Amino acid sequence: MSESPLRHSSAPPLSATDQTRLRRLPKRARTERAALYEILDTGLVCHLGIAVNGSPRVIPTGYGRAGETLYLHGSTGARSLLDAAAGAGVCVTVTRLDGIVLARSVFHHSMNYRSAMIYGVVRVVTDADEKLAGLRTLSEHLAPGQWDAVRQPTRKELAATSLLALPLTEASVKVREGHPEDDEADLDGAVWAGVLPVHRVFGDPVPDPAVRPGTPVPGHISQRVTGL
Amino acid sequence: MSESPLRHSSAPPLSATDQTRLRRLPKRARTERAALYEILDTGLVCHLGIAVNGSPRVIPTGYGRAGETLYLHGSTGARSLLDAAAGAGVCVTVTRLDGIVLARSVFHHSMNYRSAMIYGVVRVVTDADEKLAGLRTLSEHLAPGQWDAVRQPTRKELAATSLLALPLTEASVKVREGHPEDDEADLDGAVWAGVLPVHRVFGDPVPDPAVRPGTPVPGHISQRVTGL
Repeated sequence: MSESPLRHSSAPPLSATDQTRLRRLPKRARTERAALYEILDTGLVCHLGIAVNGSPRVIPTGYGRAGETLYLHGSTGARSLLDAAAGAGVCVTVTRLDGIVLARSVFHHSMNYRSAMIYGVVRVVTDADEKLAGLRTLSEHLAPGQWDAVRQPTRKELAATSLLALPLTEASVKVREGHPEDDEADLDGAVWAGVLPVHRVFGDPVPDPAVRPGTPVPGHISQRVTGL
Repeated sequence: MSESPLRHSSAPPLSATDQTRLRRLPKRARTERAALYEILDTGLVCHLGIAVNGSPRVIPTGYGRAGETLYLHGSTGARSLLDAAAGAGVCVTVTRLDGIVLARSVFHHSMNYRSAMIYGVVRVVTDADEKLAGLRTLSEHLAPGQWDAVRQPTRKELAATSLLALPLTEASVKVREGHPEDDEADLDGAVWAGVLPVHRVFGDPVPDPAVRPGTPVPGHISQRVTGL
């Protein structure tokens, strides 16, 4: 893949900064915004890194993307941690593991993955309209089709939910794909080598015990089982 | 699940510290070491959080556990970042996503997950014996059976690999499982609700093009496909 910036949207390509430049394996860098969006749009969990009094914390949470903004669910970690995050520099990482790379030597074992690291200052969303829209983005990312199928949030529920926004301005994308990169001397053909693919799949939906027997699984849910 | 500490090994239970105490939903806390080990031993990728000049970075990398020590592959991020991590406080998080919780209201949507957050000071492993053993732990975690099936690391390869060690002293474990916790008023039985399970599965191994045709996939690899 080329490292030259390519335009895939009206937004600028991902520019290298001191934080995002890949020092070790620049060949794995991606600079297209489409690569960033693909990882964000297919991932389900992000890891939010914040520094509390200089000590890092890494918190898994849900998220959703709307254009150039990443919305993060703010109620997963302790509220005091999120207060620490608001207005401060954070790093959000989304990682998709695609395979285990099985080489002919221990040294060349690796993983196939796609990862996006986003740096920025998070903002607590307080505007009512943006909050509702952002929560919808987040909800539809996790559970597409559910927003319109279930009860909408009440004012009290909205107040009890915190939503963080992070602009997709500074990000780096790393992708490793394909077969092991073994040493020539190890390629005698006798040792099996290759990739063990890793997939995320959805199992059959399990109804809550209080669902009336015979209630069909809505199509927007059941289609995800075969959709991946 | 009880929140009282239970002994599952000779090591002490996970004690609550200011960093690990769950403020928001203490009912989701686990204090058994067995719960911590189960998450670490079944996960494949961890997210290493470090603070560089006060700014957090979250780096996905491979790991493996040997007793009370977590070994982290140190060559995934840029070397300068790992230098920053060495000797400093870090947070390592491993998250397993088990399901999407589909409720009768937007507000009660959630995820079923198991996550472990480990806090500590990382140490760069320099002792040759520990480094070899630690790398074996890491390799066997990612690709069990491969260490003895492929070429061992040379002295040069060992020197080119960095390995970090983190003691499993301070950790918190959070688990959410089961069905949505809907409001009583929403339980009319007409709206489908439940859990969409999320699984990690291994696909059929894909041989490297240089593997001699007809070379069988070793049993320790092929058994993983059906093993999960």
